[in-house]
Amino acid sequence: MDFDTVVMKFGGSSVADPEKVKHVAQRLVAARERGLRVVGTVSAMGRTTDGLIDLAHQVSPHPDGRELDMLLSTGERIACALVAMAIHDLGQEAVSLTGSQAGILTDSVHTKAKIREIRAERVREALDGGKIVLVAGFQGFSRETMDVTTLGRGGTDATAVALAAALGAACEIYSDVPGVFTADPRIVPGARKLPAISYEEMLEMSASGAKVLMLRAVELARNHGVRIHARSTFSDEEGTWVQEGDEMEQPIVSAVTHSENDVVFTLTGIPDRPGVAAMIFDVVAAAQVNVDTIIQNVVHGNAEMSFSVPAEDVPATRGALESTRAELGPFAVEENHDLGKVSLIGAGMRSHPGVAARMFRTLAENGINLQMISTSPIKISCMIARGEIPAAVRALHDAFELESAPVAE
Amino acid sequence: MDFDTVVMKFGGSSVADPEKVKHVAQRLVAARERGLRVVGTVSAMGRTTDGLIDLAHQVSPHPDGRELDMLLSTGERIACALVAMAIHDLGQEAVSLTGSQAGILTDSVHTKAKIREIRAERVREALDGGKIVLVAGFQGFSRETMDVTTLGRGGTDATAVALAAALGAACEIYSDVPGVFTADPRIVPGARKLPAISYEEMLEMSASGAKVLMLRAVELARNHGVRIHARSTFSDEEGTWVQEGDEMEQPIVSAVTHSENDVVFTLTGIPDRPGVAAMIFDVVAAAQVNVDTIIQNVVHGNAEMSFSVPAEDVPATRGALESTRAELGPFAVEENHDLGKVSLIGAGMRSHPGVAARMFRTLAENGINLQMISTSPIKISCMIARGEIPAAVRALHDAFELESAPVAE
Repeated sequence: MDFDTVVMKFGGSSVADPEKVKHVAQRLVAARERGLRVVGTVSAMGRTTDGLIDLAHQVSPHPDGRELDMLLSTGERIACALVAMAIHDLGQEAVSLTGSQAGILTDSVHTKAKIREIRAERVREALDGGKIVLVAGFQGFSRETMDVTTLGRGGTDATAVALAAALGAACEIYSDVPGVFTADPRIVPGARKLPAISYEEMLEMSASGAKVLMLRAVELARNHGVRIHARSTFSDEEGTWVQEGDEMEQPIVSAVTHSENDVVFTLTGIPDRPGVAAMIFDVVAAAQVNVDTIIQNVVHGNAEMSFSVPAEDVPATRGALESTRAELGPFAVEENHDLGKVSLIGAGMRSHPGVAARMFRTLAENGINLQMISTSPIKISCMIARGEIPAAVRALHDAFELESAPVAE
Repeated sequence: MDFDTVVMKFGGSSVADPEKVKHVAQRLVAARERGLRVVGTVSAMGRTTDGLIDLAHQVSPHPDGRELDMLLSTGERIACALVAMAIHDLGQEAVSLTGSQAGILTDSVHTKAKIREIRAERVREALDGGKIVLVAGFQGFSRETMDVTTLGRGGTDATAVALAAALGAACEIYSDVPGVFTADPRIVPGARKLPAISYEEMLEMSASGAKVLMLRAVELARNHGVRIHARSTFSDEEGTWVQEGDEMEQPIVSAVTHSENDVVFTLTGIPDRPGVAAMIFDVVAAAQVNVDTIIQNVVHGNAEMSFSVPAEDVPATRGALESTRAELGPFAVEENHDLGKVSLIGAGMRSHPGVAARMFRTLAENGINLQMISTSPIKISCMIARGEIPAAVRALHDAFELESAPVAE
């Protein structure tokens, strides 16, 4: 399928200094000069967002969410305005738009808003006028409260995919890695770049630690049929296409991913009656925490339950759990910060039940102990000691022969 | 006159770091706790705006005005959001608004927009709800282009006065000086803080170098009858009230001001025919340059003309002059960067013609040579060598006995 419009997304490291800003401008101009209608969406420069968060915490221990969004949304505006200036100097017209000017309407959940709708009239008009349009990533606007919102982690990727869906455009996501690999090349030097991967596999990879694309952007892309081209800011080589899977040619296992960002909560002494788990996870979800693996066990009529959450959600999780004590009575909470997760991803494993056994055997042969296991039709994840992650990734990459090109079975 | 609403303006040095942000929050909360409806308007933290301008120039030699406004408007938003966070921690409710959210409508002249109208519904609603409202200074919104604009130098003072006019509020302008003085206390240690000064005198003082209040804010205040209280961020002492003058009690001379920021252009060889001066100053005004003193002379049928402009307007002035050459033929342009201006201000001098003579005599007795003179009914300015400014200010402060409280004549 050919597109006449492209949305090109550049992350914070791609615009970290004035020289890089000019480089991004050149890439956008080159696409425009190939005859495309071009939308650029850009994250805040380098560590700007972290700097603003630090500043907020120096002023207030628990910054108000609405005000935090007002603060954080400035980072992307700065980056977009600078890219637009640099484009002018290259002889093309450009205009930068805030999230609200670009019609990115969200709900009103500050710091983690979800995109509801894109009213892209102003973007379209500017494209019709031959301009390159820069849209500030990571932010939107709530019509209920008339306030600026931010989209949380992965927000700029979500902005790019949602804009591509609204404009019927291709979506190119640029970063400092040249695509999606069979494993992290820093751990497995022989890891191979995948030419294409299905939405489903990419979802599992993003959920289990691959950083190249954010989960919510892949979800959005799948739901709206947007093809994503994940590629390098610094070269013209083809990256990885994320698209509808072609079941006939699916390899059994596509990639090994890992994550060192999980904290495992274990609750003991909670009553074993119906509805307790539902209640706990309702409260945790209401705190906007993304729970990953959950396992439950009943010991002497009391339930024991473990689940993992991203490290940054630990304070929210603690608060949510405390709020259930009135109803659930005394229970103990333990946190384990020393675990990591290694996962095998592959749409082909759906029809190959032996994959899990082979994974567990490989880990056992390398002396690696399993703490928790969770599976989906196309993924198997194991929580293991964090220090053993590199060895586990290398062993699995070898065992499933990911270094050589895949053979469909 | 008593007000139930107050607009409190804090400059960039008053919010330069997190501790100062918290201090500003305390001042706003204290006013709220005295029962007032409180609007705060805040400049960008410390040198933020200069940093953003530097960044723009690293990316582009001549940054696009629209994009520069998108960039620069972020500084005040950051400061306002931080102050709002700090107010929450002090137990009051607060909400920060961008210029466009606060209804500050401007023309479309980027980087130097003028306020046209304030639609303060959202500010009023928030005040009605008991909230302290922070309004990002220095910025507005053009309805024609739907773009963010910035107000240029003195923009945040203008925001404060315009809001006070729209809300029928008092206007307090806080800075690191405790009010308006008879001369710069760094040059004249015995300079005296004025308890009150008329709009007219303050206009002349701001125009001739006093930095405590910006010219446009004083103009706005006079046009809308807003009383300004210029006072210190760091103490509760009374500052200086800028208000309608009471002619009966006017001292002859109120203050000596000076400026080291002027560059004098001298044009020689321009044709001496009607309309030439009008043409030159039309073109210069179209470049948004604020011309101060102008003098003209005819020598051998050619006009010689000199005028002074603020140093930052020199490039725009040069460009404007070049553009008249096609019509005016060859003329020579000289620039003098070594001059400064010393001025006497006083509504009382209107009826005392001897003031100018006494000023010139005082300067002559101190061996100071006059390069250009300009006068208004309440001001006399002399351009002199920049190095002689401190001596001139001290001599005039002495000669007009400004150290002692004024006696009306």
